[in-house]
Amino acid sequence: MPVGTLATVKTLDPTDLVAMGASMILGNAYHLHLRPGDELIREMGGIHRFMGWNGPILTDSGGFQVFSLATLRKIAEDGVEFQSHIDGSRRFFTPESVIGIERNIGADVIMQFDHVIPGQSEEVPSRDASERSIRWAARCLAAFTESAPADNPDLQTLFPIVQGGIHPHLRREAAHTLTGMHDWVGFGIGGLSVGEEKPAMYEMLDVVNEALPRDRPRYLMGVGFPEDLIEGIRRGVDLFDCVAPTRMGRNGAAFTSQGRLNIKSARYRNDPLPLDENCDCSACTRFTRAYIRHLFVSDEILGLRLLSLHNVHFLLSLARAARREILAGMLDAWSHDWLSRYHSKSPIK
Amino acid sequence: MPVGTLATVKTLDPTDLVAMGASMILGNAYHLHLRPGDELIREMGGIHRFMGWNGPILTDSGGFQVFSLATLRKIAEDGVEFQSHIDGSRRFFTPESVIGIERNIGADVIMQFDHVIPGQSEEVPSRDASERSIRWAARCLAAFTESAPADNPDLQTLFPIVQGGIHPHLRREAAHTLTGMHDWVGFGIGGLSVGEEKPAMYEMLDVVNEALPRDRPRYLMGVGFPEDLIEGIRRGVDLFDCVAPTRMGRNGAAFTSQGRLNIKSARYRNDPLPLDENCDCSACTRFTRAYIRHLFVSDEILGLRLLSLHNVHFLLSLARAARREILAGMLDAWSHDWLSRYHSKSPIK
Repeated sequence: MPVGTLATVKTLDPTDLVAMGASMILGNAYHLHLRPGDELIREMGGIHRFMGWNGPILTDSGGFQVFSLATLRKIAEDGVEFQSHIDGSRRFFTPESVIGIERNIGADVIMQFDHVIPGQSEEVPSRDASERSIRWAARCLAAFTESAPADNPDLQTLFPIVQGGIHPHLRREAAHTLTGMHDWVGFGIGGLSVGEEKPAMYEMLDVVNEALPRDRPRYLMGVGFPEDLIEGIRRGVDLFDCVAPTRMGRNGAAFTSQGRLNIKSARYRNDPLPLDENCDCSACTRFTRAYIRHLFVSDEILGLRLLSLHNVHFLLSLARAARREILAGMLDAWSHDWLSRYHSKSPIK
Repeated sequence: MPVGTLATVKTLDPTDLVAMGASMILGNAYHLHLRPGDELIREMGGIHRFMGWNGPILTDSGGFQVFSLATLRKIAEDGVEFQSHIDGSRRFFTPESVIGIERNIGADVIMQFDHVIPGQSEEVPSRDASERSIRWAARCLAAFTESAPADNPDLQTLFPIVQGGIHPHLRREAAHTLTGMHDWVGFGIGGLSVGEEKPAMYEMLDVVNEALPRDRPRYLMGVGFPEDLIEGIRRGVDLFDCVAPTRMGRNGAAFTSQGRLNIKSARYRNDPLPLDENCDCSACTRFTRAYIRHLFVSDEILGLRLLSLHNVHFLLSLARAARREILAGMLDAWSHDWLSRYHSKSPIK
């Protein structure tokens, strides 16, 4: 899912996303609550109409942002008091208030409010945050059920989030407890790719995906890079989101089948090749590295847009390829080949 | 002609321009010589291929930029020595070297190198610059003829530029002398909209268009705003270019049939209307003022793009409307109505 934090996938137009075959995008309740305000979005007919995107949208609850962006946090069982990173205004988020915000925004899938901790946390704080997240899942569910529109109770769906840090037994426990709490449509897997080592992340995915019901989609939150997609899909993950393709694109970095490329490098000054010779995106089929480098060197916005387009297309294509291989029963061999090819290439920089 | 100074119409994609019905765009020899370099563009197959635009392109010679952007100018009969506004490097432009640059870039219409002076200049400096521009037109023509590709001499065409400041007799003289010099395909009208009063500009247009051959297109350089387009078309102008639609768009200002609108204003916070209710551009048919304002307030690039799209579309539509009215023999009545409606509306800001 391309990330549209503030109701726009940075530098891209909804028509670009449709053309690339994006089927679902992300918004963020914390950011949209602060700007432009969730009540304004409701007044404007909900986020789909507001941002001109007719496909499915998922909103993260902002748990991650409250714990990474906001300042002067006071965490209590009831909720979290914090200062906005925009204007320093004091805010108080509870599981119930966040469900209210996500109801106003109106995404199709909304995430519970959770307690996110750093990736390397010890067992005690990990257990504490995981168990609080489970209690908050129950409160979110109650608020969600109570606020369901009478004429269309399934207008939105709520996903709980499995936490537990890098502690397998906490992850397993969280997955089991949440599974027993309700017949959820799908599950989030949170608190990964937040500073822990990659092998720890993969181990947690193995544990969680084993513990979750097999017929429900799992969403690995905030992940990831091309290799993370493959590793996640191998372990049963269905949904991903990450700001990397657009953020890296705006910084001049392109994902390619030959590793990462920094278009600002002088070596591309007169390079007539596309960003990636194996790519059929609308940047690679029309423009040379030399042209895109010129745009970056000259601070031209089209450059940011073309690299964002390319990177989002790269990840969407990768996910589509994995889906094809799953259906063909070939995921294991294909992903093994893909990863060893990707890792063996020295980045062309 | 939408302006693509650095081989990109700022914030827009060539496909946007095609969709809006833009038929010809602009590049700038001064800017492209400095970045990425005209020789690089030639090496990459010329500007059309470089920037992915298959329609006609016109390059301004950079006369205006040498006299407005560059520093430490030394003007002599041979040419102009100046410092690049990018890196301070010393450069020397002559009519011959500029033709070489424009040959390398490879636009369809290329402009002569001219001597541009401030809009309020007195007669003596105006005569001096106008007569030098005429002598430089002759030198450009010689260099252009000499450098014509043997297999395709009409690959590009050269336009001279009528100067003469705000002095009718100098303008008339320049138009007559240039017309007698060569059977030009078209003519530029330069040195207007550079600080003089609007009535002076309109008077010069009346004089010049009367003096130029009726069957050759006239290009009013660096103009303009919606009302300037109408006033210019009434006086026989066929081609225009101006950075206003994209520059104003990036600053949050939109042309509308009700005057100018500044989308950053708090009054549009929850405004469900499009930028202009009478507009069918791809911004107005999809997005509200509230959404576009949110994008600007949040520094989102899509906002810059949508306003640029809208403004370019506004001017292209206006030019198309004028063409229809000319063909219907109704230009006079239509333009009179349009201007009085446009001027009577108090800007909604």
